[in-house]
Amino acid sequence: MAASQSLLSLLLFSLLSITVSQSIIRMPSDRKTRNADDDLYCASWRLSVETNNAGYWTNLPSRCGRYVEHYTTGDLYFSDSEVVASDSLAFARTVKIAGDGKDAWVFDIDETLLSNLPYYALHGFGSEPFDDASFDEWVDLAEAPALPASLNLYKELKQLGFTIFLLTGRGEYQRNVTGKNLLFAGYGDWERLILRQTSDRGKSATLYKSQRRLELVNEGYRIHGSSGDQWSDLLGFAVAERSFKLPNPMYYIQ
Amino acid sequence: MAASQSLLSLLLFSLLSITVSQSIIRMPSDRKTRNADDDLYCASWRLSVETNNAGYWTNLPSRCGRYVEHYTTGDLYFSDSEVVASDSLAFARTVKIAGDGKDAWVFDIDETLLSNLPYYALHGFGSEPFDDASFDEWVDLAEAPALPASLNLYKELKQLGFTIFLLTGRGEYQRNVTGKNLLFAGYGDWERLILRQTSDRGKSATLYKSQRRLELVNEGYRIHGSSGDQWSDLLGFAVAERSFKLPNPMYYIQ
Repeated sequence: MAASQSLLSLLLFSLLSITVSQSIIRMPSDRKTRNADDDLYCASWRLSVETNNAGYWTNLPSRCGRYVEHYTTGDLYFSDSEVVASDSLAFARTVKIAGDGKDAWVFDIDETLLSNLPYYALHGFGSEPFDDASFDEWVDLAEAPALPASLNLYKELKQLGFTIFLLTGRGEYQRNVTGKNLLFAGYGDWERLILRQTSDRGKSATLYKSQRRLELVNEGYRIHGSSGDQWSDLLGFAVAERSFKLPNPMYYIQ
Repeated sequence: MAASQSLLSLLLFSLLSITVSQSIIRMPSDRKTRNADDDLYCASWRLSVETNNAGYWTNLPSRCGRYVEHYTTGDLYFSDSEVVASDSLAFARTVKIAGDGKDAWVFDIDETLLSNLPYYALHGFGSEPFDDASFDEWVDLAEAPALPASLNLYKELKQLGFTIFLLTGRGEYQRNVTGKNLLFAGYGDWERLILRQTSDRGKSATLYKSQRRLELVNEGYRIHGSSGDQWSDLLGFAVAERSFKLPNPMYYIQ
């Protein structure tokens, strides 16, 4: 009995190996300009970034520029963001809100609440080196749209009674335009917008954000959830009870 | 100038939205039996599992059974595993090996060093409820093949001088068949094979594995890397300097 099951298993495993070549993920509209090997590799590279297996990275692999463009402008990015929001909300609904205003959720801003895709679309979707000056010009426009799934989540969390903190790597000098952009995109009623101070210069994002979360904890807030597109939004100390990683294959902030 | 850039950005963003529908990820060989909406959702669901956004889950979403079958038996699973191994090795090469035998790497076994795909292929690729008795029969066969990328990584780590610990949720009663299976699959020269004892009954995998890692740390080992297909292999306390999450959309162990 065991021997025949074993034989069947091996046979099936061999058959599976033969069918392997049939299921390469491919974006049908784009066969002329990219190739399946790149798509396969870049899909795996993207997973390695999203799981933080890749660790610190500075540049997109050159073969993945077109893949990232198609991912971020395609259905999958939006679908991925929606599932993150749905996971977040499912957890949020299990939290017992005490009613003392201390049940908190921390959101990052860029590529979390707001999408800078209109900017990155003009700058190679992460394949060009980051340029502070032109990005600051874009920020000053205060016209970044909301990530739709995050806007819905934000509103749902407000309704559930969470106190919302916005914790961003943007600098204090960008407070006004950032607030303006958030309102433009449909956000409102946050408890506090926390930006980098001059005293935070030189700190990693992980350290800066951990220190700010610790201050919230010391003020008596219970940080149930944290949403960010960077691992540095989520790791470190004073971490949330549950952290939610939004997709971002365009850049990595340490 | 700013206004014209803004207009251009908005225009481009609108164009991007229009092209969205062209880049649905789809597995071309399988259009008859699955639909693009399911593939899109299931790709996002898989990401949510791999990033641990989904948290604890027990069953595959019913619409994702076929997707998981195609993923695990297709190129992408193997490619994903290869990129994880490549990330792991890139990190391992940055570690300065002291030569005192205390530079350690911890591997999980199932779906990390060994693949139980031949078993899961006969049991719905995770879509059937887990059955201890039939899985134990499969384990007793000691015929699980190596995950090829992990076997290569294992050998490279040995060559670099890492001391290798195997830390598994399998029970002490499975020590002999597990050792036999590892040798059959090509593994050798591990320092210690650590299995669940009767005193570990009722502990979560996260707690059990953290406690065992802490014992290693207390013995003076420096745990540089840890490889596992479950977040419970990697989180908790006494965690490795870097953790590497192998893909597994078939089951979740807390």
